[in-house]
Amino acid sequence: MTSIYEQHLDKNPANYQQLTPITFLERAAAVFPDRTAIIHGKRRISYKDYYARSRQLASALAKHGIGKGDTVSVMLANTPAMLEAHFGVPMTGAVLHSLNTRLDANVLAFQLDHAECKVFITDREYADTVRQALKIAKVKPLVIDFDDLEFPQTGPLLGEIEYEAFIADGDPNFAWSPPDDEWDAISLNYTSGTTGNPKGVVYHHRGATLMGYANVISGEMGKHAVYLWTLPMFHANGWCFPWSVPVQAGTHVCLRWVRANAIYDAIVENEVTHLCGAPIVMATLLNAPDNEKRVIDHQVNFITAAAPPPEAVLAGMADAGFNVTHVYGLTETYGPAVVNEWKGEWDALDASPRVAKKARQGVRYLALEGVSVRDPETMEPVADDAETLGEIMFQGNIVMKGYLKNPEASDDAFEGGWFHSGDLAVMHPDGYIQIRDRSKDIIISGGENISSIEVEDVLYKHNAVQAVAVVAKPDDKWGETPCAFIELKPGATATEDEMIAWCRETLAHFKCPRHVVFVELPKTSTGKIQKFKLRDVARAS
Amino acid sequence: MTSIYEQHLDKNPANYQQLTPITFLERAAAVFPDRTAIIHGKRRISYKDYYARSRQLASALAKHGIGKGDTVSVMLANTPAMLEAHFGVPMTGAVLHSLNTRLDANVLAFQLDHAECKVFITDREYADTVRQALKIAKVKPLVIDFDDLEFPQTGPLLGEIEYEAFIADGDPNFAWSPPDDEWDAISLNYTSGTTGNPKGVVYHHRGATLMGYANVISGEMGKHAVYLWTLPMFHANGWCFPWSVPVQAGTHVCLRWVRANAIYDAIVENEVTHLCGAPIVMATLLNAPDNEKRVIDHQVNFITAAAPPPEAVLAGMADAGFNVTHVYGLTETYGPAVVNEWKGEWDALDASPRVAKKARQGVRYLALEGVSVRDPETMEPVADDAETLGEIMFQGNIVMKGYLKNPEASDDAFEGGWFHSGDLAVMHPDGYIQIRDRSKDIIISGGENISSIEVEDVLYKHNAVQAVAVVAKPDDKWGETPCAFIELKPGATATEDEMIAWCRETLAHFKCPRHVVFVELPKTSTGKIQKFKLRDVARAS
Repeated sequence: MTSIYEQHLDKNPANYQQLTPITFLERAAAVFPDRTAIIHGKRRISYKDYYARSRQLASALAKHGIGKGDTVSVMLANTPAMLEAHFGVPMTGAVLHSLNTRLDANVLAFQLDHAECKVFITDREYADTVRQALKIAKVKPLVIDFDDLEFPQTGPLLGEIEYEAFIADGDPNFAWSPPDDEWDAISLNYTSGTTGNPKGVVYHHRGATLMGYANVISGEMGKHAVYLWTLPMFHANGWCFPWSVPVQAGTHVCLRWVRANAIYDAIVENEVTHLCGAPIVMATLLNAPDNEKRVIDHQVNFITAAAPPPEAVLAGMADAGFNVTHVYGLTETYGPAVVNEWKGEWDALDASPRVAKKARQGVRYLALEGVSVRDPETMEPVADDAETLGEIMFQGNIVMKGYLKNPEASDDAFEGGWFHSGDLAVMHPDGYIQIRDRSKDIIISGGENISSIEVEDVLYKHNAVQAVAVVAKPDDKWGETPCAFIELKPGATATEDEMIAWCRETLAHFKCPRHVVFVELPKTSTGKIQKFKLRDVARAS
Repeated sequence: MTSIYEQHLDKNPANYQQLTPITFLERAAAVFPDRTAIIHGKRRISYKDYYARSRQLASALAKHGIGKGDTVSVMLANTPAMLEAHFGVPMTGAVLHSLNTRLDANVLAFQLDHAECKVFITDREYADTVRQALKIAKVKPLVIDFDDLEFPQTGPLLGEIEYEAFIADGDPNFAWSPPDDEWDAISLNYTSGTTGNPKGVVYHHRGATLMGYANVISGEMGKHAVYLWTLPMFHANGWCFPWSVPVQAGTHVCLRWVRANAIYDAIVENEVTHLCGAPIVMATLLNAPDNEKRVIDHQVNFITAAAPPPEAVLAGMADAGFNVTHVYGLTETYGPAVVNEWKGEWDALDASPRVAKKARQGVRYLALEGVSVRDPETMEPVADDAETLGEIMFQGNIVMKGYLKNPEASDDAFEGGWFHSGDLAVMHPDGYIQIRDRSKDIIISGGENISSIEVEDVLYKHNAVQAVAVVAKPDDKWGETPCAFIELKPGATATEDEMIAWCRETLAHFKCPRHVVFVELPKTSTGKIQKFKLRDVARAS
């Protein structure tokens, strides 16, 4: 027998709507039409115009036959066109595929083909690489050039039409509809896998909407927050902030190049309240020459993720007046899915234990239902003893739909009903997780596991060290030993022996590097140190 | 052909979870176990204990056979038991039915029967009425007495067991599950209809979750906000704030009786940051004798709804240092569904136009997809000219599932794909709506529509007036004429002629009351003036 609550209480157009972040922009434009939505160089775009231009883009795409399930690829810097694509593309039912602008032509071509790209919007800055990629790719998309008049570029125009001309043909009152189902795809982001072909991570409207709320609440973004784009929007859709900022009718401040003076200037001149970025952005800010720094006299919230921030950098940011919120997540989890939820009583701790609290990844994001550290064999949670290593696993509405056209990888990732992150962590007794290593970054020496992060944290505390990466070096006797690659601060000097001695003051001997190499560290476009390259060097040396 | 985004990208336990506000409490208890969740008199309940006690309640209910689709009714003041019921009942899959504690025995009995109540938790304070109601009702629920030791009551114990003894039998680790479907019912609230039997409004888990986010963002509730319970929780589930406060691991401050001195004391002693209530609560605060008032030296956000606040009261609150946010909604829309979204530039306006902006109901709440003022005949939106009257209609995820066991009323309410509010309003050119009247409150005199609210606003500005209600009085010549019922401030005096003359200074003559009656105004438990009673008086006199 059906219960009384299941009789004639069905969904109808009045009481049920598919969730989509497009409604956030629609609302901001309706309520705050004249408010500045986007700042780019000298240009200001109001919410009314942001919404109208996004609808023009959608309309122009629809005129070219783009609709549900089609892929629109973009190779764009953090510009207004990129922000418009985050709404204009999904308004048509199509899927936004953002390309990492640092990739080489072969990888770009692979992605365009794999995603079955129909339309490709590309910035002149990247024309040389893109031209090559288009030659290699089998797909023949409609190519649209974005020519940034605020920051003129000199690359050749590759496409049939320029972006402004393309959208000029679109209707600013384009009647978009919510998706048929909030589970429908909204975007596609390829992971920069270190081996094999990249995997295409698919997001849905439901998750993007829930992230809209969660980012605002976790990031403490108040009404009309001012958000600076130091994080690339091609990276997990900029952790979904393109969809979060309109929730509070905030202002996006674009930034074509992430450089210290440009960041300081933008923060001071536009009264920026929030920015996100990898720890490398913090290092850029802290290590900038004095003539590029500016005095910031208002509170700025810096949300950081990627690698766990070195303790020394976290301490430096606090001194410089930034309020750092530490989050953790993967492309597969819409960006941040874990947050170092800060407790007031920790403010009273001494610097060192306080920074140690800050360095932990933390607890589940509001929009995520579950995070757990488990033994991937037994799928049992590990003891909450801050010692036992396990794999971080996720469950919830901000976990991807899966990998595009890759059923095996999807099935592997979701095995046992949890998303497997590949990151190793411990669980603290208070329920906070702390990453110890990527599975592949762990160093196994004489049967003992060594956390490369633990060794790196010690080296970061040395005054001469700007950046460091510790990887495994094959060893006939021990299996592997730790090898440290160190980038020194400008003008600083140090020796291998000195560094090893420094480590031995704090760490067990077996954890200390056997080899130290002084180099400029290779980094990805998002600031992650490319350990796989260092691993090759260590192996060969 | 299915698109590439529809192949092997399905929902699974890792990437899809049913939305439920229970996860907010679960998260607050996991992350902030020792933080105070509830203050009640001298009692303090931590989040760890709040969660454990809610699970005990769920477990004890489950042991008594309560599960999906069952109704658990409560007749409770704003006490810890009521807050626990908001989580413990849905944890079992059952539906929380909150009774208005001011109702008479016949109406209570009707609701208990109509809702097919299985378990009934009732506060000793209301024992006399409840005993009568249980005699009249056909259902024979398990009756549980709540005996509030912080505020001892003397009414007889009616049930088989006392609340603390009942939950003591429950398991604090009860393994609750999310609902099978986020569309499943979570609560039932009867509207206090002025004619006919009350209608049972059914909410779902999805809507309650989205309101959790929207209340926090619209109400600007920061981390660990302190929320004072002046709004009854039986009223649209306290606008969903029982589910919103744990989002920020905030503190609930209970309040058994809404009295000026108790409110001032609670605000000062517990550093309350937020409270909600009808305008009558504001009047209570402003008109309190000086010895009951306290100096408040921190910002307090007062969220008000129900009737549009009289302009004079809004001005008074601003002077007293309260930041008033004006929302509007109905039981059918989970409480607030429209918010007077404030614009910074309005702060620069003179007092009178500023208050006029504040008196408008506003724009759609974040979690609502659409609000519109429409002609109910043609279903066309009215002109946005601030003049043309239409009916306020809603579309979105915070519109009820429908009326329980009342398909005709549900179909009427959802006719044309919009929820019909029954409230009349105009649309301003900037997209803000303003209520002109309840449909039934409009006065039609000589073929002209008179807004009772417009007349009331004028009378509220008179120094002697504490509260006022204007209703239609049948008239042989004009059809209807306005009749004003006025409650004077303590010690104030005024005459009928004086009041009519006061109105004529501002209003067209036909809008001015023909009759003025000085009385103590009858009010509902939620502070709404009961115009239907006054209408009877006007008709009879």
